Amino acid sequence: MANPYRSYLAIGESIDKKNYIIVTFFLHSEGQPFDRTAGGVAAESSVGTWTDVNLQGKTLWDKLHGKVFEADEKTGSVKIAYPLELFEPGNIPQLLSSIAGNIFGLLEISALRILDIDFPETFIKSFPGPFFGIAGIRKITGISNRPLIGSIIKPKLGLSHVEHMNAALDVFEAGVDLVKDDENLTSQSYNSFYNRVDEGTSQMKRSGFLGKGSEKIYAYNITASYDEMLKRAEYVVAKNGNCLMIDILTSGFAAVCGIRNKNFGKIIHAHRAMHAAFTRSKQYGISMLVIAKLARLSGVDSLHTGTIVGKMEGGKEEVLAIDNFLRGEWYGLKTVLPTASGGLHPGHVPDLVRLLGKDVLCNFGGGIHGHPDGSKAGAVAVVQAFDAATKNIPLEEYAKNHPELRKALEKWVVKEE
Amino acid sequence: MANPYRSYLAIGESIDKKNYIIVTFFLHSEGQPFDRTAGGVAAESSVGTWTDVNLQGKTLWDKLHGKVFEADEKTGSVKIAYPLELFEPGNIPQLLSSIAGNIFGLLEISALRILDIDFPETFIKSFPGPFFGIAGIRKITGISNRPLIGSIIKPKLGLSHVEHMNAALDVFEAGVDLVKDDENLTSQSYNSFYNRVDEGTSQMKRSGFLGKGSEKIYAYNITASYDEMLKRAEYVVAKNGNCLMIDILTSGFAAVCGIRNKNFGKIIHAHRAMHAAFTRSKQYGISMLVIAKLARLSGVDSLHTGTIVGKMEGGKEEVLAIDNFLRGEWYGLKTVLPTASGGLHPGHVPDLVRLLGKDVLCNFGGGIHGHPDGSKAGAVAVVQAFDAATKNIPLEEYAKNHPELRKALEKWVVKEE
Repeated sequence: MANPYRSYLAIGESIDKKNYIIVTFFLHSEGQPFDRTAGGVAAESSVGTWTDVNLQGKTLWDKLHGKVFEADEKTGSVKIAYPLELFEPGNIPQLLSSIAGNIFGLLEISALRILDIDFPETFIKSFPGPFFGIAGIRKITGISNRPLIGSIIKPKLGLSHVEHMNAALDVFEAGVDLVKDDENLTSQSYNSFYNRVDEGTSQMKRSGFLGKGSEKIYAYNITASYDEMLKRAEYVVAKNGNCLMIDILTSGFAAVCGIRNKNFGKIIHAHRAMHAAFTRSKQYGISMLVIAKLARLSGVDSLHTGTIVGKMEGGKEEVLAIDNFLRGEWYGLKTVLPTASGGLHPGHVPDLVRLLGKDVLCNFGGGIHGHPDGSKAGAVAVVQAFDAATKNIPLEEYAKNHPELRKALEKWVVKEE
Repeated sequence: MANPYRSYLAIGESIDKKNYIIVTFFLHSEGQPFDRTAGGVAAESSVGTWTDVNLQGKTLWDKLHGKVFEADEKTGSVKIAYPLELFEPGNIPQLLSSIAGNIFGLLEISALRILDIDFPETFIKSFPGPFFGIAGIRKITGISNRPLIGSIIKPKLGLSHVEHMNAALDVFEAGVDLVKDDENLTSQSYNSFYNRVDEGTSQMKRSGFLGKGSEKIYAYNITASYDEMLKRAEYVVAKNGNCLMIDILTSGFAAVCGIRNKNFGKIIHAHRAMHAAFTRSKQYGISMLVIAKLARLSGVDSLHTGTIVGKMEGGKEEVLAIDNFLRGEWYGLKTVLPTASGGLHPGHVPDLVRLLGKDVLCNFGGGIHGHPDGSKAGAVAVVQAFDAATKNIPLEEYAKNHPELRKALEKWVVKEE
């Protein structure tokens, strides 16, 4: 049988990268000719469908169809070039509906993952990108030459807004730079969003942590339906908070871009909850690198990317590729601060510093609030661990005359071994 | 080693379903004790983390922690009951950040899928649900006793707004009830959203298809960043269009709920592009049934669910479970019209009617616009196929004196055999 998608094949054709979005897929196609399936993917994700249609002649088909210009059955690698005219500038949901839409559901595929996307300059520049980026966050915090230290209040849920913000103040006082809500804390009966903002901004002002050039950052989680999300963002603005947190994947890119496009002049901290529902399978889905590229387009200032060490999956090579992308030049768009978060404690700090460098935010939840002597001691221990690591002193050595660190290591490092 | 998550295990405990959201998972945990991993999932998705924390005593921990009340290692089935107090009413992103958030990334799991969710009445009633539902759509269209017939204009992209709407009018005149944009058509240079709405609403008014009690429906795809999405919805309202289409997963539930909460009084048609990126893997992700439940909460009026036949994956049992959920009673929330779409042609109609019943919207793209004699003849052929099927006349029989149907069958059914 002839390949009905042969017109989508352009193997070896040289592609002018200025005019195309190029998507690298991993494809498997059990019992189907590989080329045919690759062509079918290019059709369904651009202008084609399962049969020829009459109106095709009336369209710009020649200008618009996706082109399979590389296809290697042995490795499963397929590269498709999509003409820019297929896409709406500034519209991430439309991009996803095209190149990450129906194709995952096609009967004839047995595996399909989006590994990477390369965007041309004109498309990238149709987005605002981050408002602050790494340099902007460093300017707000006054921290120039070390990783930022963050904490998530734990337990995730159940503290009142006062207990919650007391814990935040404790760790700020101990030297932590940023505190954030947990991803599932938004506005619950015992800890409403508005009470939390009131309490947080007033406590932080009183303590001199806001509005003085070297601020502490509090990331208030505004994740909700968009109408409510916008109200919450406006409330943080009204109360002179400095950071909006969004669970970008459970909220969705329409909402993230909506908030960013308002130009509130507040840091947007992006949590990636739910990413592994589609980044983790080796068969179907989208890589975290691609999500990171979309997040940078959408304009978040910091993004959870992985810890390498800690409780979450995500290997060294993958996390570094993502972090290096976020920190690198990208047609003038500002950078994004990579955030390492999940199961971290002071014992991990030397590895974090060695692996991730200094342009990173390292978050500690249980690894601070689980310290035997409480949250403040836990935060002191983390700060001590960063001091030791940046001075290249082994933790065990440094712990000898730093009791908070010593107790932390006794709880976590000894127990782990 | 003791199970640090044993306090999350409540196997056999009887759960009062009025006070809990109950999530059914498929879990696999290579080389780890099953109970321990199930408890770890319950911890991470409710109030716990990888270590004990000091502030736990201050919280409502006993009232708030998730409980593993069923765990069957042999089948991988795990049921966790989450106290309602964990969740914010009316907030789907927060729900997902909790029960579908970090857990997919936990190192110790080797497979985790959310198969089903049961919500208690109070949570369900914190959402508006569909504005119209099936009964409302039937009232608008005046069609009481048969499936609705829909068409997607094909090719997906490249027609001008005039060519596009001429094709829509052709198929409306032939008896099609609804026409929709394709999922990746939003506002491109050759076919801008606003031009399309102008052309569509004025052509449809001129032809008597709008505002007369038995309307034709046009679903304008408003998918974009939220600020632009809202402008587009308001434009459809201003021009008296009757239906907003949203790619609900690429836009995200914050945006879907944001639009629904505006109470525009327009049908919301939900396309599920990208669903298979997380519904298709057998290892990781979320079932389509769960997405359908969230979509009904969020308040869409119709939702793509599967065809059973056609070009997309999705087996009979799964699609029927979803469709029956959408059509069934759910604590007073209105129903959602299931939409079968993807690779359908007139030859599929008897199977569609037999399998899916009459409360369904069946969409034809290539199966109409690929007809040898053009879009209008293609639409006539589809309408003839539904006539035949509802009269229980075999298609080949009916085709003898219905030439449009005959030509369609000659192109698609004969070729398929």
